[in-house]
Amino acid sequence: MRTVAAYQATAADQPLAKSTIDRRDVRANDVMIEIEYAGICHSDIHTVRDEWGGCKYPLAPGHEIIGIVTEVGSEVTKAKVGDRVGVGCLVDSCMECEYCLRGDQHYCENGSVGTYNSIDRIDGTVTQGGYSTHIPVREDFVIHIPDSIDPAAATPLLCAGITTYSPLAKWGAGPGKKVAVVGMGGLGHVAVKIAAAMGAEVSVFSHSLSKKADGERFGATGYYTTEEGFEKEHHRAFDIIIDTVSVPHPVNAYLRTLKPEGAVVLLGLPEGGMDIDPRSLIGGRHTLAGSNIGGIRETQEMIDFCAEHGVVSEIELITADQINEAYDRVVASDVRYRFVIDAKTF
Amino acid sequence: MRTVAAYQATAADQPLAKSTIDRRDVRANDVMIEIEYAGICHSDIHTVRDEWGGCKYPLAPGHEIIGIVTEVGSEVTKAKVGDRVGVGCLVDSCMECEYCLRGDQHYCENGSVGTYNSIDRIDGTVTQGGYSTHIPVREDFVIHIPDSIDPAAATPLLCAGITTYSPLAKWGAGPGKKVAVVGMGGLGHVAVKIAAAMGAEVSVFSHSLSKKADGERFGATGYYTTEEGFEKEHHRAFDIIIDTVSVPHPVNAYLRTLKPEGAVVLLGLPEGGMDIDPRSLIGGRHTLAGSNIGGIRETQEMIDFCAEHGVVSEIELITADQINEAYDRVVASDVRYRFVIDAKTF
Repeated sequence: MRTVAAYQATAADQPLAKSTIDRRDVRANDVMIEIEYAGICHSDIHTVRDEWGGCKYPLAPGHEIIGIVTEVGSEVTKAKVGDRVGVGCLVDSCMECEYCLRGDQHYCENGSVGTYNSIDRIDGTVTQGGYSTHIPVREDFVIHIPDSIDPAAATPLLCAGITTYSPLAKWGAGPGKKVAVVGMGGLGHVAVKIAAAMGAEVSVFSHSLSKKADGERFGATGYYTTEEGFEKEHHRAFDIIIDTVSVPHPVNAYLRTLKPEGAVVLLGLPEGGMDIDPRSLIGGRHTLAGSNIGGIRETQEMIDFCAEHGVVSEIELITADQINEAYDRVVASDVRYRFVIDAKTF
Repeated sequence: MRTVAAYQATAADQPLAKSTIDRRDVRANDVMIEIEYAGICHSDIHTVRDEWGGCKYPLAPGHEIIGIVTEVGSEVTKAKVGDRVGVGCLVDSCMECEYCLRGDQHYCENGSVGTYNSIDRIDGTVTQGGYSTHIPVREDFVIHIPDSIDPAAATPLLCAGITTYSPLAKWGAGPGKKVAVVGMGGLGHVAVKIAAAMGAEVSVFSHSLSKKADGERFGATGYYTTEEGFEKEHHRAFDIIIDTVSVPHPVNAYLRTLKPEGAVVLLGLPEGGMDIDPRSLIGGRHTLAGSNIGGIRETQEMIDFCAEHGVVSEIELITADQINEAYDRVVASDVRYRFVIDAKTF
């Protein structure tokens, strides 16, 4: 056991504060990672402010982590001391069910273990995330970070990258396909870059044109606002729509912009239900789907793809004492496009 | 031009009545079909009672047709006199757009022509359907009916068969897959037979157990009612759910019975919208899709599959003077499972 520096939330209405947490010694199949960078995801904020319920205080959030392996357990074969590795939203699962065996640990039949605010399968403690200087992780949940990618800017890819890459890959983004991304925030800007790198023709729908120049720089060739009736101007326009918006918005209208057999994939969780007209689905055999992170196999594939194609997140690097201010700016959509914390400052 | 016997609707609130219609002479790419059998689809009733609006009276409905080719146009190469052929929901389309070229004429960029209540692309007349003794059809829209299938019982497959086969094929029904069919009516009973013939493990959800023995005979191994909270008993149970119900029902609960990456496919059009909880989609990357008929290429594939696997509709063969009574029984769900009209009685 070792005591390490961290930033933790102690209550829903309190700012995060400097603290220490106890990290276990490496198990036989663990690696210990000295964290270099930890990304701030909107989920961190929802969790520590208890907006989703069930926050187990005190809690260090953070599920976008890159660092260097400093120690390995006696049975570790998948990483060695000195490797640069990443950790995303998951740190453990049964690794025995059909989903785990095919690398889709996020579907684990026995429940996967989140990087923070979950219960460790072995010692029953509450998992503590990346807002700290070190983290021990089961080797099967470690992602190798290629040398060619900037580690600070790659950090948000461990969540925002896999969350957008996975549905783009599943629904076949690539040459000849038209992709629209709804929302140009932390997820959306990565979705634009990845879809463009896959060879698709990419458009953005946003509530304003304020980020149009950015969108074009990231690879979008169309950039639209959603005035009343916009769906009529985009009749049969898109094969895949990646919808990153988490406030109520006209999902039904987006369904009407799909080509036959096209799909709208929701990544955000709009509050309350959505009123969906079945005629928006049936006519052209449209799909409305949801998607959420991805498995370890595909997360590695995503990082390798991003390294090969020069895709990283746009980031603002901050020190630990700026976390609370950064949270307020994330909530106000005042960040282009993700905050990453320099872990040396914890 | 020839005048042939038919049954037509003259107004939304009037019964269908014996009449005659004018059928064009065959065009260079037409075949003339002497109809043997015409199926009754619930869509016929919705249309002639003007429940969907836009019914062009007088109208002979009917888009499930099997008969014998009696004449061919000068350029016809795909059928010859004496062939037994079928016609489904479509009789024409541009045959030039990307969708038509790949055999998905139901997605035609320039609008496909329905078998009835559409406007003929060449002469501008209202198309008249299968409730008549003869129908001329562009050869590209004719389905070859294998000798080994009973033509009367195969007739409903031209609509109910392709409407269920196509989504089952797209979403991968087959060995190792668990399929649920919601509703055991005209569409549902064919869906059960086709899914079972594809090798899937099939269950049925119905509002009662009254058709359980039938369901098992058709190939289902599970048969359930939908009591409050039924979704909890079927957690992660199904890969594909074919939902044939067209009254409001708990679509959201069915989404919660899906395995990861599973799909609910709506074939019915429940009135009003559906209240969908995005969390029912996002957690396991579930799909909610709609589907409606299929193209000519796949309709031929479906008929060949059904002939090979001995799949036909369960039918009640009636004479033309029983049509109005049959309509009332379809609306009352009092048919096991499809009515087919003997065209000799028109």
